[in-house]
Amino acid sequence: MARLPRRTDFPVSEIRRYLEPGPIVLVSSRHGDATNIMTLGWHTVLEFVPSLIGLMISAGNHSHAMIRDSGECVVNLPTSVLTDTVVGIGNTTGAEIDKFAHFGLTAVKAHKVKAPLIGECHASFECRLHDDALVKGYNFFVLRVVKAHVAPRPAHPETLHYMGDGRFMLAGRTISRRSRFRPEMLG
Amino acid sequence: MARLPRRTDFPVSEIRRYLEPGPIVLVSSRHGDATNIMTLGWHTVLEFVPSLIGLMISAGNHSHAMIRDSGECVVNLPTSVLTDTVVGIGNTTGAEIDKFAHFGLTAVKAHKVKAPLIGECHASFECRLHDDALVKGYNFFVLRVVKAHVAPRPAHPETLHYMGDGRFMLAGRTISRRSRFRPEMLG
Repeated sequence: MARLPRRTDFPVSEIRRYLEPGPIVLVSSRHGDATNIMTLGWHTVLEFVPSLIGLMISAGNHSHAMIRDSGECVVNLPTSVLTDTVVGIGNTTGAEIDKFAHFGLTAVKAHKVKAPLIGECHASFECRLHDDALVKGYNFFVLRVVKAHVAPRPAHPETLHYMGDGRFMLAGRTISRRSRFRPEMLG
Repeated sequence: MARLPRRTDFPVSEIRRYLEPGPIVLVSSRHGDATNIMTLGWHTVLEFVPSLIGLMISAGNHSHAMIRDSGECVVNLPTSVLTDTVVGIGNTTGAEIDKFAHFGLTAVKAHKVKAPLIGECHASFECRLHDDALVKGYNFFVLRVVKAHVAPRPAHPETLHYMGDGRFMLAGRTISRRSRFRPEMLG
């Protein structure tokens, strides 16, 4: 199993750095005594301040009711060392197994929510349900990120980007066009 | 300027292949005689059938009202050969310039909407506004993809993934874990 990266506080208003490029995330939740983890690729950043993100969590997922009913979850960012774990989590259901135990993942206590962080991930974002208006119609949860934990290194984690049909694109090299941006477009 | 790739019909139910990995997209619109293009990174897939996607289009963008009022747009997928064009489009406003003319892009007639396709892009997805319930509160447009045009080659286009602060991650190599998926999780 992967080691646990040392993570530090990160400004919640800047989490687009990690989520906007479209990585697969692992969403951890707790309801009562039960915890669960799901693999998810359908998400978007919605706002910087407050820090809002949107997650499409299909009603068929065990996590859907847990997050809807508890009003909380943690969005965790795995890297390619966790590829087989990501696939395993996506192909099993929390209705049948304890995913933390089954996949040997470390549940770390969060600061502001009851759902656990996944210690092996590069980053973890603690979230509270902000608006459920589109949950019924589209399974779309608007969440507010209330606390962010990010490993300072590596600076460019090799994230996984799902393409369907069992295939992933891995994050490649990074380029800067900073000098071509109007100042107000940066940040 | 980039050449125009030859593109063919693509099943709208399978566009997650291109949008789920989180690429920057160029959104083209038309309202009356005016066209516009904006650069956008805040989007997500929402459903396979019907083919739904969600776009967060800030109200400060000239495109916001054009798409809201016309009820249509085209989501185009640029690759890294268009990096400087993508940056230029994101740092100018359609209130001041004609973006197709200014950036030397080719407006191609769409099949089902009045908004133009961008001929230089790897793929173009014609969209109709499906639900505006979250437009007022979150600038979040739920769109239905009604027609998709995709270049068969390259099989793995080098898409751009924005990280904020003028930096982009480029799509890297592709890996398959198909054999580890339950059959119903594929497709």
